[in-house]
Amino acid sequence: MDAEHLVDVIRGRMVESEHWGHIAVVNSAGELLYSNGNPDKVVFARSSMKPLQAIPIVETGAADSFQLEPADLSLACASHNGENQHTDRVKEILSKLGLTTDSLKCGTHPPRWQETYEKLMRSGAEITAVYNNCSGKHSGMLATTIHMGESVEDYYKTDHPVQQRILEVISDITETPVENIEIGIDGCGVPVHGIPLKNLALGFAKMANPTSFPAKRKEAIERVTSAMMEVPEMVGGTNRFCSDFMRIEEGQMFGKAGAEGVYCIGDLKSGLGIALKIEDGAGRATSPVAVEVLHQLKLISKEQNELLNEYHYPNLKNAREEIIGHLQPVFTLKNA
Amino acid sequence: MDAEHLVDVIRGRMVESEHWGHIAVVNSAGELLYSNGNPDKVVFARSSMKPLQAIPIVETGAADSFQLEPADLSLACASHNGENQHTDRVKEILSKLGLTTDSLKCGTHPPRWQETYEKLMRSGAEITAVYNNCSGKHSGMLATTIHMGESVEDYYKTDHPVQQRILEVISDITETPVENIEIGIDGCGVPVHGIPLKNLALGFAKMANPTSFPAKRKEAIERVTSAMMEVPEMVGGTNRFCSDFMRIEEGQMFGKAGAEGVYCIGDLKSGLGIALKIEDGAGRATSPVAVEVLHQLKLISKEQNELLNEYHYPNLKNAREEIIGHLQPVFTLKNA
Repeated sequence: MDAEHLVDVIRGRMVESEHWGHIAVVNSAGELLYSNGNPDKVVFARSSMKPLQAIPIVETGAADSFQLEPADLSLACASHNGENQHTDRVKEILSKLGLTTDSLKCGTHPPRWQETYEKLMRSGAEITAVYNNCSGKHSGMLATTIHMGESVEDYYKTDHPVQQRILEVISDITETPVENIEIGIDGCGVPVHGIPLKNLALGFAKMANPTSFPAKRKEAIERVTSAMMEVPEMVGGTNRFCSDFMRIEEGQMFGKAGAEGVYCIGDLKSGLGIALKIEDGAGRATSPVAVEVLHQLKLISKEQNELLNEYHYPNLKNAREEIIGHLQPVFTLKNA
Repeated sequence: MDAEHLVDVIRGRMVESEHWGHIAVVNSAGELLYSNGNPDKVVFARSSMKPLQAIPIVETGAADSFQLEPADLSLACASHNGENQHTDRVKEILSKLGLTTDSLKCGTHPPRWQETYEKLMRSGAEITAVYNNCSGKHSGMLATTIHMGESVEDYYKTDHPVQQRILEVISDITETPVENIEIGIDGCGVPVHGIPLKNLALGFAKMANPTSFPAKRKEAIERVTSAMMEVPEMVGGTNRFCSDFMRIEEGQMFGKAGAEGVYCIGDLKSGLGIALKIEDGAGRATSPVAVEVLHQLKLISKEQNELLNEYHYPNLKNAREEIIGHLQPVFTLKNA
């Protein structure tokens, strides 16, 4: 196995389960500084690609044309909880586009935020695609579609100009030739992109320090990452690592989770990009690894680290709300 | 890492995630016949211990005293969906004991079966402890408690006679000295038991072929395992591997899942016991491994194997209900 032991799941006095995986830390010049496991491993970035997928919304002029606010751009990068703050805004964006939730092709699932789910059920309301955690990304894709006068029905398909535009952005920012990007289908029906982990880290490093890009792309990147950091509650929501992490980092870092155990961070101060993949796909292991990397690299203060304690060493509770164990990072970053 | 590569998670043309783990196949004489990974690994059996935890209900005479039916005993071994078929029966058992759901100390969580959950919400009903997937086990523990005239309030605590009786049964059946059994706290507040994986497999082998036990224990074991096989829908419910697996095996095998990636099977015909643990705790990987072990050992027919196909190679669907990948076992059982 080329993965490394990253996190222990502890119950009582015993390690009950283990998570192994891969980490890459890269600077914006493309130098791999630290790595654990296999930094060349090709991974589906899943939703951690959303900040890159949002860039054409700005670059095409759709954001200005529809007067999208930072909160709207932040929501386009989200895997959100489906709270009212998210769904109300998705509906507003769609309304600006002259569309309704019927145009969202992301499919439906219950809102992640249980209070909202129960409230919906209790009120007899229907669960629509707006509650899908990807509805912000899809409304962003639709903004570009409408602005460019492209076909609305099939915006989610790989050969649609919206998706081809995204592919070019990803290829450019992560320095991965288009023909080397592996395409799969995501949980919400749009293409997912498989690239080496170190290129994913590079993409976040270059978004943190976008000086090498032409002015238009640089500006689009800065608008997207600033929006995430300015309105972090849009990216996840209540009790979500992405949101709490960016709130605590106060404009210094942006981060985004992806399904199947992916997490990516860009740090503006150091210009570093961090990408990690839990080999088994466990989302629960991502925040302990992410915070531990920031801690070992001394990129966060003692106070920030303490504020992130519940994500660094998450407690396990049972149905009686008793703490019966916790997660614990167990790795040391290695110089690459 | 002492675990072995057991299952691939495939999205499109790529392996997105991997599950590694441990397998032990043991006969009722205690011989380890096959193993992958580390068969000596101490694992918390979690809910796969429920069939053993149910034995005192019969042995103490509680089952007869309260005229518990096979479905009741099967439910005592369950991690159920919280469907009406389960919760109605838990309430009936409690009523036979002169108790109400207030006596259940398992805590509450939403029923696993989403239809039931949504129906409950829509009707404005409250979610009580009866919907906890362990409420059958707890009602069984309460049956023993009441029958033996023991204290009801603290039946879930490690030093309560109900839990001490269970500990003796586990020690005897798995041939693990009590002092070597690691105790943690389960998701429902009662003790969980950590023993070597091969001893867990041995326990299931000896329950499949209980001829070595004194008559009373042998009879109790047979009543519990027969109940599970006779009324398998109680053990899990609709679309659940435990239930569908036992239905298809038609009285030849009993099986029980445990949280954090545990699965155990007893095969009456061969007298073999099988125990597996996914290192990372992923429940999704257990049925592909379990069915693959049965397939490689030729313990199931071609027809049974085909009927279990959706558990052997589970498809991954997205929110649009499109199949976007699948799970696939990738190991070969090794002679021990």
